[in-house]
Amino acid sequence: MVDKIRLASVGTGRWARVLANAVARGERAALVSCFSRDEAKREKFQQEFGIGRSASSYEELLADPEIEGILLATPNDTHRELIVQALESGKGIYTEKPIAGSLEDARAIADAAQRTGSTFAVGHSARRLAGSRVMKQWIEDGSLGDVSLAETNFSNERGLELTPDSWRAKTKSPGGPMVQLGIHHADNLNYLLGPVRAVSAHSRRLYTKADIPDAVMAILEHESGALSYMGTGWASPSVYTINLQGTKANLRYDLDFKHWHEGHLADRYSTLQSQSHELSYGESHRPRVQLPHTDMYLEQIEEFAMATRGEATVEVGAAESTAALAVVHAAIVSSARQGKAVEVAEILSGQAKAA
Amino acid sequence: MVDKIRLASVGTGRWARVLANAVARGERAALVSCFSRDEAKREKFQQEFGIGRSASSYEELLADPEIEGILLATPNDTHRELIVQALESGKGIYTEKPIAGSLEDARAIADAAQRTGSTFAVGHSARRLAGSRVMKQWIEDGSLGDVSLAETNFSNERGLELTPDSWRAKTKSPGGPMVQLGIHHADNLNYLLGPVRAVSAHSRRLYTKADIPDAVMAILEHESGALSYMGTGWASPSVYTINLQGTKANLRYDLDFKHWHEGHLADRYSTLQSQSHELSYGESHRPRVQLPHTDMYLEQIEEFAMATRGEATVEVGAAESTAALAVVHAAIVSSARQGKAVEVAEILSGQAKAA
Repeated sequence: MVDKIRLASVGTGRWARVLANAVARGERAALVSCFSRDEAKREKFQQEFGIGRSASSYEELLADPEIEGILLATPNDTHRELIVQALESGKGIYTEKPIAGSLEDARAIADAAQRTGSTFAVGHSARRLAGSRVMKQWIEDGSLGDVSLAETNFSNERGLELTPDSWRAKTKSPGGPMVQLGIHHADNLNYLLGPVRAVSAHSRRLYTKADIPDAVMAILEHESGALSYMGTGWASPSVYTINLQGTKANLRYDLDFKHWHEGHLADRYSTLQSQSHELSYGESHRPRVQLPHTDMYLEQIEEFAMATRGEATVEVGAAESTAALAVVHAAIVSSARQGKAVEVAEILSGQAKAA
Repeated sequence: MVDKIRLASVGTGRWARVLANAVARGERAALVSCFSRDEAKREKFQQEFGIGRSASSYEELLADPEIEGILLATPNDTHRELIVQALESGKGIYTEKPIAGSLEDARAIADAAQRTGSTFAVGHSARRLAGSRVMKQWIEDGSLGDVSLAETNFSNERGLELTPDSWRAKTKSPGGPMVQLGIHHADNLNYLLGPVRAVSAHSRRLYTKADIPDAVMAILEHESGALSYMGTGWASPSVYTINLQGTKANLRYDLDFKHWHEGHLADRYSTLQSQSHELSYGESHRPRVQLPHTDMYLEQIEEFAMATRGEATVEVGAAESTAALAVVHAAIVSSARQGKAVEVAEILSGQAKAA
């Protein structure tokens, strides 16, 4: 019998269920406990996923010697306290992106991770999609040539459903869709094209009832010289796309957001098409690139779980997730400055802050 | 026998041939003369298109009483002089986009058109593509709901072929691909979403040997509140796309640039796909919208020709084409100001000038 790595879920909402389902698809880890302030929710979650016990307080959970790592799926503004507490108690912790809502919180988390040496991982799952991995490979092996332009969009209709009192609608979610959706592409673009030097952005509140932006566009200047674009909205049917333009070829990636929460299906509902200079139009104009079928959530949870035992290295930790958050905050600051470019370094150093 | 409207081609290069082929596909107009400084080129052009005569000077062409209108296909920086001269001689004149390279030239042309009352038309063909017309219809009849985000890209590999002494490589083509390709989308976006208030942009020279930008990205703020994006590059395989995100549906338009010069085929090598909230993935996820087959070049030439006889109204004249040029110049100025938004009104009034 395999000695499964013992994890606990903190948060029992929609995303905690996505992660619990991912754990159940794998062999390496198991949920052995869970915590939510609401007892009824804890019990329901325990039953649904066959979890042996639950904790009646976060402190009780952290004191449980059996638990090796925590999967955190709570609102962004709760991350700092819960993560730092876990790290300090010697528990590894995985959190959903973003690492936190503010850069200040992100820095506190990064400090705690470094100070304690406890395992810390952030769920920037998008870079683990088969399409992202294949795009990265095409860049690295030279198949794309030199990339000058990259375009990304991650949008859905969430803003049309939001009411003014939803947590996403408050300052807890600065940048609206940018910090919830766009941040995935901020990480993708850091991953694919290297560090972002500066960001120019505009954001608008147009059709949502909540007091948050629902239409954001940003231009990212990469240190490599490449320009990339992030479009992110909360006022339309869902979009998840990445287009890369290289001197040798272009790639277009398209994911059906409806399967976003199903890590094991997302690749199947994705297409990656290539386009080189020579091809003429027709069926083969943009031949489909075969994508393997991976499971982004399971992969990152197992990597995290194994890392708590020193058997794996965390791919996206405090540094990578803070870099993605800094792009989002640079966009927020730039938008308040009529699109004038804001340096990511300025954001990271705390010199520039969003209003 | 139809009394065809008598046109003359000025310029006998690649684009003059595209226009001459378009004229030949129609019934309403005919090329009766042509002019190019190079006699051998004139003769070759005459023979190829069965044109009865040619002029040995532009003045001779303008003095030809038979000619009702001129089709101009010469470099951007020659537009002003040739157009103003034609208008003042009482001839109607159609020019390829852009109206001119500089706003100053555009203003002089607009003044001459107004002063003389001669017919003036600019070849912003892209808005005449069936896909553009259908998108406009979906916006107007409410099928898209309210549009918050629009994304466009027009790129090709031209910059990788350019040498430092090509005309496009010099200041005659400010903004590089922006004024040659991007300007089509500037007009499309003005047409689809209404006037642009301000533009934020970044441009880069990355992989071309010529001293011009080959990677440009711009964010356009429309007076309606919508944000739109223009990506335009000269360092990758060709791209021509328009994506619209509305509260009720999204539309994606994609044209194969290889057929760009064939107005009668462009629609056939285009796809328009719609996406509403309800649809699940599969073959019907983004059903194709049927597109009629039009002929953008022929349509605009015939409209111009008929306008010279007062039988039609020009859709894209000095005002519309200057508005598109102003977007491009706002992008150039913004790029020099680190992306800070530049108002189109500031460009039109001559207060802000590109370096």
